[in-house]
Amino acid sequence: MTPLPPGSTIGIVGGGQLGRMLAMAAARLGYRTIVLEPQPDCPARQLANRQIEADYDDANALGELAAATDVVTYEFENVPVHAAARLARTVRVMPPPRALEVAQDRVVEKTFLNSIGLETARFAAIDTLAALREALESFGGKGLLKTRRLGYDGKGQAPIRDTGMADDAFRALGGKDLILESFVPFAREISVVAARGLDGSLAAFDAAENVHRDGILRSSTVPAVISEETALAARQAAFAILEALGYFGVIGVEMFVLEDGALIVNEIAPRVHNSGHWTEAACAVSQFEQHIRAIVGLPLGTPSRHADCVMENLIGAEIDRLPALLAEPGVVVHHYGKTETRPGRKMGHFTRLSGAAALKS
Amino acid sequence: MTPLPPGSTIGIVGGGQLGRMLAMAAARLGYRTIVLEPQPDCPARQLANRQIEADYDDANALGELAAATDVVTYEFENVPVHAAARLARTVRVMPPPRALEVAQDRVVEKTFLNSIGLETARFAAIDTLAALREALESFGGKGLLKTRRLGYDGKGQAPIRDTGMADDAFRALGGKDLILESFVPFAREISVVAARGLDGSLAAFDAAENVHRDGILRSSTVPAVISEETALAARQAAFAILEALGYFGVIGVEMFVLEDGALIVNEIAPRVHNSGHWTEAACAVSQFEQHIRAIVGLPLGTPSRHADCVMENLIGAEIDRLPALLAEPGVVVHHYGKTETRPGRKMGHFTRLSGAAALKS
Repeated sequence: MTPLPPGSTIGIVGGGQLGRMLAMAAARLGYRTIVLEPQPDCPARQLANRQIEADYDDANALGELAAATDVVTYEFENVPVHAAARLARTVRVMPPPRALEVAQDRVVEKTFLNSIGLETARFAAIDTLAALREALESFGGKGLLKTRRLGYDGKGQAPIRDTGMADDAFRALGGKDLILESFVPFAREISVVAARGLDGSLAAFDAAENVHRDGILRSSTVPAVISEETALAARQAAFAILEALGYFGVIGVEMFVLEDGALIVNEIAPRVHNSGHWTEAACAVSQFEQHIRAIVGLPLGTPSRHADCVMENLIGAEIDRLPALLAEPGVVVHHYGKTETRPGRKMGHFTRLSGAAALKS
Repeated sequence: MTPLPPGSTIGIVGGGQLGRMLAMAAARLGYRTIVLEPQPDCPARQLANRQIEADYDDANALGELAAATDVVTYEFENVPVHAAARLARTVRVMPPPRALEVAQDRVVEKTFLNSIGLETARFAAIDTLAALREALESFGGKGLLKTRRLGYDGKGQAPIRDTGMADDAFRALGGKDLILESFVPFAREISVVAARGLDGSLAAFDAAENVHRDGILRSSTVPAVISEETALAARQAAFAILEALGYFGVIGVEMFVLEDGALIVNEIAPRVHNSGHWTEAACAVSQFEQHIRAIVGLPLGTPSRHADCVMENLIGAEIDRLPALLAEPGVVVHHYGKTETRPGRKMGHFTRLSGAAALKS
């Protein structure tokens, strides 16, 4: 197919740092961007041509966005499906709304993953305390209780380590639309950021090894310490998901690696992913450019990297580390331009390149 | 000194592709930008927070820019010196207006370079036909006649290969404020993009070897084919210029390399430079980020590179090569977002990375 010509306009639902970095990548390829985001002066605003200041499901705003753009994408998976479907009636929406449906509900997500042959944690949909107790029994008395929808960065989760904790956890999470997942005794957490182009071509960046703290990603290290066999399986899992969803764009797939190298898919994010931020520093083509290439119909970039690296998030007051980090050789920093520092808020990130490749001259 | 905190605002005089890339680099470090540029919807507008649409010497606009910014820089050397001086009365202006004075007049420039011990072509200021004939005689009957001011991309130049061509060339260039330069029998053309920070620290990217056609830069190759001794001398020449001008920011210094490795400084550009565009693809810190770091008082980045590379400009309809270039591994593209393609207009560039470093995985 013919790619959208430079000068075309890409709509982005969501104006946070991911939208910001997508807008920057779009500009470098000659595309214009319009961001739909209720928060005034959002991070993406600075790099976009225009912001439509409205809620993600505001009908008038969605109509305006569709009319003014050639393709619409999103920076987060909680875009209301009906809003995406409304957009899709008059403008191309990528990734497809089906990917949102799957990613928004942990039960639907795991059911989908199992249906294409990928392993997940054992799980059970929970709407009553009786169901929770029954499931706990079959999971050996423990498990991770989560809301089915709208969880992120560790919010909406409660570990249950013995049956006595069940009632409190059940009530704390609202008592319905929950999922109980079995604990996975993983050796490490990895993620694969992969892409599918409009021509069906596939590309995956090297898997990153991730460390979370309090449910928030702290660091991604590349390469991950996994065997070639596991790396191949991880890439193939991501490709299987992309193809089964008829997906166009970049996806993030989080997985657990067991002691024996087997993979358990944890969750998918139908968008560019925090654990792929290192690509802007260590690859010729970043995940953000890759996503833009995919949705406008350009060839995917080769996902090779020129250095080993560690990406770390700067959360809350950690952003004050920037001047010291800027003094280090081989450190690439990214500040999200957020005016207010709040505890737990992602303010920026940096990637430390290492190995001979980082220091050629 | 304390760096300007993120959230501070940088003014940029000029809204072309250099202003655009500076605005992008500023955003990544958390700074806001305001561009002063008469052309509506200029390339930098898309990436800046705001555009003041006015001439570069509009007194009201300059006052507005100074009042709204914490530091002002420029993307081209033909900013009127009186405008820069006006700004400097109420806001920090970097590089200093003195650098504009030197760079804007080829006679002043060469006089300055010679005064700090750097070799240039022989030259003579020309305001009369008699003076031109006299100078030609002492230059062996030939030389390059140029306007002293406002030449760029090969405009405002006329080669004189025998005395009979003198009259026509003299008239074609306006008959006053000219300079005659001796032809330099160079083996190659190189440039050094270097920076000086607010703390006086110095850093230089590796020299690039440049090819011009019709006076316009076509390609920059790194590394240049020069000896270590010549590379060192080139870097030292750039540093000497930075220090003599009390300069802060990035400078581009174009030089000729003679057969024996000796250097002749051709001209200086007190700004980020086309021959430094490769740094965005092959270095952890690009020339654009380096310039922003320097003028806000952050530490300079280490100018090491992770790959050999060739940067090529995409001029006029060459921009249509983009889809094919995007399909090549290790090619990093940059589209300037200009809506109208015109012959001779710089529309974008790309950098082809090479060597093992480009293909680690």
